[in-house]
Parts: sequence; structure tokens; C-alpha cells
Amino acid sequence: MTAPVSVLADFRSDTVTTPTPEMRQAMAQAAVGDDVYGEDPTVNALQTELARLTGFEAGLFMPSGTMTNQVAIALHTRRGEEVVCAEGSHIYEWELGMMAAFSGVVPRFVPAPLGVPDPGDIRLAVRRSIHQSPTGMISLENTHNKAGGTIIPLDVLAAIRNVAQEEGLPLHLDGARVFNAAAALGVPLREITRHFDTVSICLSKGLGAPVGSVLLGSAAAMKQAHRYRKMMGGGMRQAGVLAAAALVAVRDGPARLAQDHRRTQQLARALVDAGFNVDLRAVQTNIIYARMPQAQACVDAWAARGVLASALGPDSVRFVLHHQVTDDGLEAAIRVLTAQSPEQESKPASTMSR
Amino acid sequence: MTAPVSVLADFRSDTVTTPTPEMRQAMAQAAVGDDVYGEDPTVNALQTELARLTGFEAGLFMPSGTMTNQVAIALHTRRGEEVVCAEGSHIYEWELGMMAAFSGVVPRFVPAPLGVPDPGDIRLAVRRSIHQSPTGMISLENTHNKAGGTIIPLDVLAAIRNVAQEEGLPLHLDGARVFNAAAALGVPLREITRHFDTVSICLSKGLGAPVGSVLLGSAAAMKQAHRYRKMMGGGMRQAGVLAAAALVAVRDGPARLAQDHRRTQQLARALVDAGFNVDLRAVQTNIIYARMPQAQACVDAWAARGVLASALGPDSVRFVLHHQVTDDGLEAAIRVLTAQSPEQESKPASTMSR
Amino acid sequence: MTAPVSVLADFRSDTVTTPTPEMRQAMAQAAVGDDVYGEDPTVNALQTELARLTGFEAGLFMPSGTMTNQVAIALHTRRGEEVVCAEGSHIYEWELGMMAAFSGVVPRFVPAPLGVPDPGDIRLAVRRSIHQSPTGMISLENTHNKAGGTIIPLDVLAAIRNVAQEEGLPLHLDGARVFNAAAALGVPLREITRHFDTVSICLSKGLGAPVGSVLLGSAAAMKQAHRYRKMMGGGMRQAGVLAAAALVAVRDGPARLAQDHRRTQQLARALVDAGFNVDLRAVQTNIIYARMPQAQACVDAWAARGVLASALGPDSVRFVLHHQVTDDGLEAAIRVLTAQSPEQESKPASTMSR
Amino acid sequence: MTAPVSVLADFRSDTVTTPTPEMRQAMAQAAVGDDVYGEDPTVNALQTELARLTGFEAGLFMPSGTMTNQVAIALHTRRGEEVVCAEGSHIYEWELGMMAAFSGVVPRFVPAPLGVPDPGDIRLAVRRSIHQSPTGMISLENTHNKAGGTIIPLDVLAAIRNVAQEEGLPLHLDGARVFNAAAALGVPLREITRHFDTVSICLSKGLGAPVGSVLLGSAAAMKQAHRYRKMMGGGMRQAGVLAAAALVAVRDGPARLAQDHRRTQQLARALVDAGFNVDLRAVQTNIIYARMPQAQACVDAWAARGVLASALGPDSVRFVLHHQVTDDGLEAAIRVLTAQSPEQESKPASTMSR
Repeated sequence: MTAPVSVLADFRSDTVTTPTPEMRQAMAQAAVGDDVYGEDPTVNALQTELARLTGFEAGLFMPSGTMTNQVAIALHTRRGEEVVCAEGSHIYEWELGMMAAFSGVVPRFVPAPLGVPDPGDIRLAVRRSIHQSPTGMISLENTHNKAGGTIIPLDVLAAIRNVAQEEGLPLHLDGARVFNAAAALGVPLREITRHFDTVSICLSKGLGAPVGSVLLGSAAAMKQAHRYRKMMGGGMRQAGVLAAAALVAVRDGPARLAQDHRRTQQLARALVDAGFNVDLRAVQTNIIYARMPQAQACVDAWAARGVLASALGPDSVRFVLHHQVTDDGLEAAIRVLTAQSPEQESKPASTMSR
Repeated sequence: MTAPVSVLADFRSDTVTTPTPEMRQAMAQAAVGDDVYGEDPTVNALQTELARLTGFEAGLFMPSGTMTNQVAIALHTRRGEEVVCAEGSHIYEWELGMMAAFSGVVPRFVPAPLGVPDPGDIRLAVRRSIHQSPTGMISLENTHNKAGGTIIPLDVLAAIRNVAQEEGLPLHLDGARVFNAAAALGVPLREITRHFDTVSICLSKGLGAPVGSVLLGSAAAMKQAHRYRKMMGGGMRQAGVLAAAALVAVRDGPARLAQDHRRTQQLARALVDAGFNVDLRAVQTNIIYARMPQAQACVDAWAARGVLASALGPDSVRFVLHHQVTDDGLEAAIRVLTAQSPEQESKPASTMSR
Repeated sequence: MTAPVSVLADFRSDTVTTPTPEMRQAMAQAAVGDDVYGEDPTVNALQTELARLTGFEAGLFMPSGTMTNQVAIALHTRRGEEVVCAEGSHIYEWELGMMAAFSGVVPRFVPAPLGVPDPGDIRLAVRRSIHQSPTGMISLENTHNKAGGTIIPLDVLAAIRNVAQEEGLPLHLDGARVFNAAAALGVPLREITRHFDTVSICLSKGLGAPVGSVLLGSAAAMKQAHRYRKMMGGGMRQAGVLAAAALVAVRDGPARLAQDHRRTQQLARALVDAGFNVDLRAVQTNIIYARMPQAQACVDAWAARGVLASALGPDSVRFVLHHQVTDDGLEAAIRVLTAQSPEQESKPASTMSR
Repeated sequence: MTAPVSVLADFRSDTVTTPTPEMRQAMAQAAVGDDVYGEDPTVNALQTELARLTGFEAGLFMPSGTMTNQVAIALHTRRGEEVVCAEGSHIYEWELGMMAAFSGVVPRFVPAPLGVPDPGDIRLAVRRSIHQSPTGMISLENTHNKAGGTIIPLDVLAAIRNVAQEEGLPLHLDGARVFNAAAALGVPLREITRHFDTVSICLSKGLGAPVGSVLLGSAAAMKQAHRYRKMMGGGMRQAGVLAAAALVAVRDGPARLAQDHRRTQQLARALVDAGFNVDLRAVQTNIIYARMPQAQACVDAWAARGVLASALGPDSVRFVLHHQVTDDGLEAAIRVLTAQSPEQESKPASTMSR
């Protein structure tokens, strides 16, 4: 699939961002070494910087967020255990069964209205019978992608942390977009990350790096993670060329997120005003879901006019904002999206509210 | 844990049945051979008899229903795929993550009110994006244990079979209690089993054999199943001693199920009359679930008076009928269970309906 | 495959033994319960008896030696580790990749002339680089089936035990035929088993029970083993019917092994006298390997005359003695096997010595 | 571990090469897109170029050679099967049990003197009994790293290909250094690759790219490989920044390999002249193994003088040549390595020949 010639705005994901000139320059000048031997100074600098920001002892750079999450699952579990997680979690929905194929574990879902699981439900999900799979870990996602980029409130995090401690269970954060959560809450990153045993952070989403995620944890955990990374094929050689861009992303990216969130609100309001079915309570960071019939047909029609979005399921469209959607691009995109209300294009309004 | 000295009725499961005198005699006289070489005539006779009853080419005897189900999952899937199944399915709830640990697959749940999934929901659960785990198979459970021993109507089975065929997906039946379903529907077993690619049948539940389940399918599938059985450690030597009892169970057991179902209705009505919270719509075969606070405490109190049941979860008690609960035992048990209504024992009635 | 009508001697394996009248009677009278709930008194008695004989805290009954071995591997390892074992080990050669499929581990072989690995080679096989799989456990096999039923001397066992302790590695014994080793050495079973963390013992080989193996270890290990057994489908219900026969086998079987070993020597000498290529150094218990061209053709020819053996590979035949090969049967079999020396049947003698 | 300040030559591996100025410029200017959506034009160009050079329909870019090999194993096998491979294969020795952990398969080794397995031995290694793991695939390594960078002759490749076809088994090439093999044989790459179903090629070894390997195969196989890549966490976003450097490596690297091989011969002769125990028959491309006592101590001593090599095992040192070892560096390194013959440093010469 090739993107159309003239794209006004690419809302498919914040993963589509391309490296900035600063990142390209950093890549061209990066000091590198063989990271499989731990000798790449730029990778080491990136890992140290993320560890500092999150308050962990150590970090480990990997090619994707799927790998950082799945290495964390391998760290915390033994085969046949359960991973307690919110329904719709990325580790299950978009990581292609890797928790089963590699770690031999199954998910145990808890309800998560607006992406926020109830601490009491998490406790109930812990297995205690010898006739059932023991619970191996609890995994949260913040912001929660499928729920709409929603934030877990800090007091809920603390309560879930208590459950984890009382049950003796490790707590992992899929923090692919945790920088968005911190920006929206207006707190330092470590106010969120301090509740967890391991945290996975993606650098190629809103922060804009071309490639890479970092797993954070104790030094001992990261040593073990090194082995799992190598098993999965994540041992890269002169990875400093990627880490150099990622360091720029970590330096420059967070400040841009507030702007992304502002534009997200602007788009969400415009969509609602035009009759789209958007749950505004879920629009908390840089993601908007609109429910509509014939989602794929709508997405295809917009794409022909230069506005890219994702049809996720038969009746759901997702818009993701990022720093390469400019104010001008956003306005042009809104004109395309609202040129005709979706009811007129596809179905009567009465069916929209389902 | 040891059962109390004088048990009036053991409702914990239909797995607690002990071999009848006929079974013991059959075991003592069984012609046997080394089944790992395929030379046990009694095992072969059992497999042939089940294949005949279900309309399949071949069967394979295994030590448990967990093994027959998990071998079927291994047969139908490749690592990283999804198994579409009803929420609360035994293959997930009580088979300890084996689908992940051995086959490397994850469950994809569909809602199943009263244990019956909607064919349309099954179709929606099939994954089609390259960014998601492909669907490897559909698995049904009939009767559905966790939903209360409920039956999937024949027309629903046919509709799900159509979905499976249209999607090109194999369809497995966890028929641990499919003899109960056939008895309750009043149809021959094969009216149910003919819709499936593989069927797992347990002989040590309501039918009363001491040990064993049989997997049914095509001859080619059973040849492949032989390898998976051996991998899991299910290759038994002179297994004919078990198969001999199982043949008696298959011959004598089905006729007793109608009686079990009648007694189940009797117990259910007695419980409801005594104020128990039982959903009578779900009481279709030999299982009753009652919702009550402090389930474990109630179960313990009854056990002290000779009536055994299972607390499944903090507020749920399960009663399972089987041929070794007699009419006399049932009446005595009902007296114990209804001696004092559960409200009086534990909490005001107002909380019972939650 | 069906055994021929009139079998003089079945040397294919000691697994072909059929239950004795005493075993059948015990099965018919066994007190049983639901072993998944731990309530089968006969299973419990068997586990206790084996624990007593081997000096372990606890035992767990399973349907096969493959399962007891594979559960032990799961107990001692984490995914991606290596299992140090002798070349030709049953856990690799005949357990169909289960160590990989379930536990996610690979074998690391050490040479084992006559089935006896050198303690120094075991130490060298332990991995220490972070670029390699860590070693998870050491597994021995005694007697060693593929090497010819050979025995690991007690001082070698002790030396390997020292290596395991110094390296901090658990040591497992595949003791499918450890009763044969103890009988041949003339020592109590626990003189062998005391060196190990877990021991797997098969009851359906030389001891003659129809079905079953027992895993021995600490009480804590057996609790964990219970979960793995259930995952693999080894949770059997009224398994006491099998355990009853196994108790008879454990009571009566060991005394018969010396006799099996004596007959094995008799057969081995007769074969050598008739020109067969048998390494007599390897004939230590109840197994004989003869190297010969066209092994399968020879085996087929003997089978037509009532003597059953196994062709293992293109130029190797195995004879296994057991209590159901009588002196008369043995003599008759020797007449068949030596009626014509193998050279005359198949190839000139000059090729036999390869 | 940090490399010492002034390194004369780094012989530890050809993976230590750092990007050339041309690669850095290419990275800075690369056209990129989101490769998870298949939209990165530079990644696509790299895949197409490798497919052209090897004669395959399609290629797939991944972060490491471990991933390309392990994805190939996943493609060709089902759980519980065996992978026939030469002893000392990288897929087993250095890929940390991933074949077991992910694909659930075990290795089946064949002898490989000088890295070259005998086609007859490969045929013997194929399992045919239902009591054994079926063979899932055959994997070769060319050049064979652990054997010394040795080449499989083209006629042996063809003969093994015939075995694979006759047995109906897929044939994979771990071609991490297949460009070295082609250069040494003086044949186009596809003269080697045409014998295989899939080929893994590393771009960050002798060719000098910073990161990446490519798997080649049919279009259908690569579609399936895409899923496994994603499962393992190899789905990278704007991977074009890496592919841009890799394209330069593929363009400029092959011509430099002959030079690496010439320098390897120069170093090998110098080592032999100085009394090192080097098997010159195995010095065929860019790798030299020297056997010596106290290998790690020697390596440490050389490192202190600016010459880096790898101790692989207690008595083995490996030297790997690559384009960033210059003629001047090589001469300086030879002076360090031969300043004192290794006998004098550590042990009498008589022990060197073991």
C-alpha cells in the first residue's frame, strides 16, 4: 500500500512520523559500537537517560514496543501462568499471540471502562485454586490505546500497585504512550513509572524517533532481559544510529505533546459538531475514536482526498494526532472530514448512535 | 483432603463416580496389549465404538479430557493463532494455560449467555488484519460447564458450522458432557457431533468410567493426534484395563443420564423453594449453580453434614448430579441443604439477588 | 500391527508385559477416589511407597515416563535454557521434542561411552557466556536404554552430583529402569536415587505394571509438578485402579529382575556364539543390542517364527528381557535366532564386524 | 566492557564494523515511511535488491540474523519437530534456545568436518518412526562460523538439495556470511542460494552495515514471515534509515571481501609461522581459529596491547577479518601477536597440538 500523493494529514498513527532534520543529523554523527557487546555509547546514553527520567536502575533498547512488552512478560512469568490485563490491551490485541508463543502464558482480562480497570476487579482476577493457572503478573497500559488514548488516574495506579504488592505480583506498564499521559496530567514521568516493576516506553510514536523502544527496570531484570532480547532477535549491532535519533526525540518530543493534545481536542470537537459519534470523555490525549457504519468505506473515501485514518473493526475509525500534523494540515483535514456529515454519506443518523 | 466419613451425596462433580462392579469385572478380565504399539485390543475396541457412535473415522484414547482438548488445539492451530471460544470455556478456565504453553495460542472470547454463543459474534471474532493474530480454530463446549451444563441448540450448532466453513476454520467440540446434551435433547449423539471436525468426549464424568477421554476425528487427524498424545505423555501401555471399564460406561452410562437430569430438576426446585438464587433457565442437564454470599463457608458447613458441593468463586456454588447420587441420597441431601435457608445462615435475602 | 498368533518370546520391550493375576485382582478390589482432588487412597499409597523406597519426601503418579521426565524438565528450567544430558538420552530421542514444545529448552549433549558420561565433560557442557543459553539442569539416565541398559557406576554418580552442586544446577534421573540398575549393582534403590533432586521411575517396564510412572522429589517440587501434570493432561480421576496394579508391581517386581538379567546373559552368549555382533561390555541388565545389516528384514523373519525384537535403525536390533519371557520361551527363541547365523541369512561375515 | 583506547585491530568479529561515511550520508538522506505498513521505500528497495541478487521472489528486513533464522525455522516447522543441522550450527550454539522457546523444535545434529556435512548423514538423520519427532527441515550454514568460516562446496550443496527434495523437506541457509562464500568461490551469489527454500543474509557482518539482516524466500513465505517478525518484535517503523546504510553495504561491501580473505591468509600464515596451532585447511574466508591453552588469558594480554580477539571456549581463540582492519593495522597486530610465541607465554609446545 502506498500513501496517496498529496497527504493533508496522516491520522493513521503517531508511528508514521518521519525523522526530523535534527534526528537525521544526530544519526549521521552518532558515535557507535557493537551493542551486542554493550559497546555502543549512544545506545548506552539513551538507556541511561530513560532510566534517569523514569527512576529505574537500568534500561534496554529494543527495536519495537512489542519486543519490550514481550520481554517483560517473559521476565515476570513462568509457562502456563496468567497475565492480568485490561480488556483491549495492546499486549493481547496487537502483539499476535506472542505472550503464548514465547512465554506460554494466557491473558486474564478485567473490564476497563475508558481504559481504567478497577483495582477490586484486578484482585478478583488473581487465581488461587490449584486447579487453575496461577497469576504471573499484572500489566497495565497507560495511555490505553484501544480505549482512546485514555489515562489511568494516579490514585488508581497507586491502588493497583497496592493490590500487586499484597498479592506478591510484579506490575508492568505498557507505556508506549506514557509520555502522553504525563504531559496530559502535567506530572513528571516518574510520578507514573514509580508504581511499576518494569516499564516499556516507545520512542517512535508521539516522540517521533524512527525506530525503537526502551524497557526499564532493575539492573538485575535488565540483565535477564538482555537474554530474552537476544532470543527474540533484538540484538542489534551499531544500534547507536537509531539511539541518536531517539535521544533527540526524548529531548525535543515531550514538549510537543501538549500541542498534539490541543489539536486532538480541536479535531474531536469539529467531528462532534459535524455529527460524528465520538465519546468525548475518552478523548484525553492524542487519539480519537469515532463509531460509524461502513468504517472502511469512509476511510477509503477520505484517503482519496488526502486524509488518512484507520478503520479498526467494521464500525470504528481511529484518528491519531502527532507533531507532523500541523495546524494548517489539521484545518484542511477537518474541511475534508466534515465536508459532508457521515450520515449523509452512508446511513441515516438514527443508526449512528448505536 | 479426605472426604468425610459418611457422605450423603457428593455433588462436587460427576468425576467423583467410582467404578461399578461391572467395570471392575471388565478390568479384571480385559484383553490387553501395548497400546503404544497400537496393540491393545480393548483400547482399539473402545476407539472403534466411540467412532461408530459419533460418526467419525477414528478415535484416540487418552488419560483426560484436558489432553483430548489440548491435542485437538495442537492439531488445528499453528503458533501465535487465536482460538475462538465462548467465554468461560473449560479449555481456558480449567486447562491451566496449556493452549499457550504447548500450542502457543491465545483465546478469543465471544459472549455466551446461557453458554450459547451467537453465530454472528463468532464471525466477528475472526481476525482478518495482518496486524493481528490469525484465527486458527473455533471451539465449542456442549454442554457448557461454567454456564451451568447448558445445551447449544442444534440449529445454533448448524449456524456456527456454516460460519466455520465459510471462514475455512476447523471446528472442535469439547464434548466432555456431550452425552448429557444428547440425552437432554433426545437425539442420537451424532446429530450433535456431525457438525465438528474433532470431538473430545470424557468417559469419567457422567458415564462413570474411572479414567479416560477419547478424541474423535478423521483417520489422518488421529494419526497426527497420536504424536501429540505421545508428546504430552499420554502414551499408556496396557491401557486396556482402563478401556474395559470405559466400554462398560459407554454401554450402560447413557441410559442413566435422563435419571440424573430428572434428579437435577428435583434438586433445583427444592433449592429455589428454599430461597436459593438459582437461574432455572440454566438448569438443563445435570448441573446447578447457586449464587450466594460466602460460598466457601456454606460449602464447608454442608460438608460437615455429609453433603459435598463446590464453591467456584466467592459467591457461586455448583452442584453436579451423577449416577452415584441415589434418590435416597438426594432426599437426605435436600433436607440438609434446606434445613435452614441460606439467607438465615449468612446474610439477609436482599443481598441474595445480586 | 498385530502380534503373531504364537509368540515364543517378545523381546521388543519390557513394556509389553501384561498384568499378572495378582495385579488384576488388586485392580478389581482397589479403593479409589478422585485423584484430581488428591482423594484416591491407592494412588496416595503408591506415591508414599515409592517415596519411601527412594528417600524422597513425595511422589506423583502419572500415566507415562515421558510425562514424569517432561514435568521434571519443566520444574527445573526456564524457557531458552539448556538441558545437559548424555547423547542418546530417552528425554531427547524418544520424547518427541516435548522438552522444546512445552518447556522451550534444548538439549546439550555430552559423550557417553557405554552410557556413562564423564563428570568433566558435564562440567565443560555448562554454558557461562551471556551470548549463550544458560544451563538449566543436568539429566542422567540409569540404566541407559540406547547404550544397552548400561549402569552408571555409583562413584561416577557421586562425581556428577558434585559437579551439579558446584554449578548450582538441579540433577534429574530418568530412572525408567533404575530398579534394574539397583538389582544389578546389588544396592538399595536409594543408594542411587539419593544423588538426585528428582527421579522418574517407570512401573510398566520391567516391574510389569500395566500403566504408570512416578516422579519423586521434594514436597514443594511435587506441588509444582501437580500443576504441570494437569497442564499435560495427566490428571486422572479414579487412577487407583492403575495404582493398585502398580503397588503389586513394586512389591513383586524387583525380585524378578535378577532373573531377567541372568536370562539376558544367557541370550547374549548364545547370540555371540552364533556369530552375532554384540558388545558384551554393554550387556549389563536386561537389554541386548546386536549390530547387523538389514536389521528390519531379520526382525521380520524372526517374527514369522514367533520371536519378536525391535529394529532400531538400519543396522541395529534390540532384545529386551522381562518376566514374561520364561526359560522355556527363551530356549525356544534362541533356537529360532541361532538356527542360521545371521551372516548366512543376509551378508558375508566380513561385513558383520563393522 | 569498553574497547581499549588505542585499538590496532579488532578481530573479535566482523560485526564490529562501524558505518562508513557513505552509509552515514545515505542514512541522513533516506526516504522513509512506516515499514509496519509496508510503506518504507528504502526498506522495500533493499528487500528487492537482495531478492534480485539471490533469485528469490521476495525479502524481509529484520534487525538481526538471529531473527531471520528463527523466523525461517518457524516458517518451516511445526511444534515438536526436528531441525537437521550441522554440529556447531549458529542456530543452536548462539541463538539461545529460540528454536525451542518459540518454534518448539529440537536440533538433530549431523557431523560436519570442516563445516561440511555429508549428504548421506543428512539422510540418515531424517526420522521416520512414529515413535520419534518428525523431521521438519534441514538447515545449513555457509560459511560455517564455528568450523572456521568454511565453505560448503557447490556439489555438496546440490547433493543435499537432492536429499531435501527426495525427503520432501524444506532447506534453509543461514547465509550470515554467504557473500564471503560466493566471493571465495568466485561465483555469483545465486549459484549458492538457488539450492534453498529460504536464505538468511546478514548485512552487518563483513558487508559492514550497522544493523540488519534480510530473509529471502517465496512471496507467500515472506507474507507468513511478516507475521512471525511482528510476533518477535521485529516490526520497525522508519527502518529505512537502517536500510539506506544496508543498501550501501550491499553495493560496496562484496568487492571488499576478497581483500579481507587475502589478509586472513596473511594473518594465518604469520600465526602458523610463529608456532600457533591453526588448521589451515579451515582458513577459507575471513575467520581463523587457533587452539591454545589459557585462551582467555592470551586474549586479555593482547587486548592490553591493542589487539582484540575472542576466546571461544577454554582453549580456542577466534580472529575475524573485516574491511576496517587495514593493511597497516594487520601488520601492527601481527607484530603484537607474534612478539612472543604462545608456547613461551603459557605452556610447552608439546601440548599445543591437542
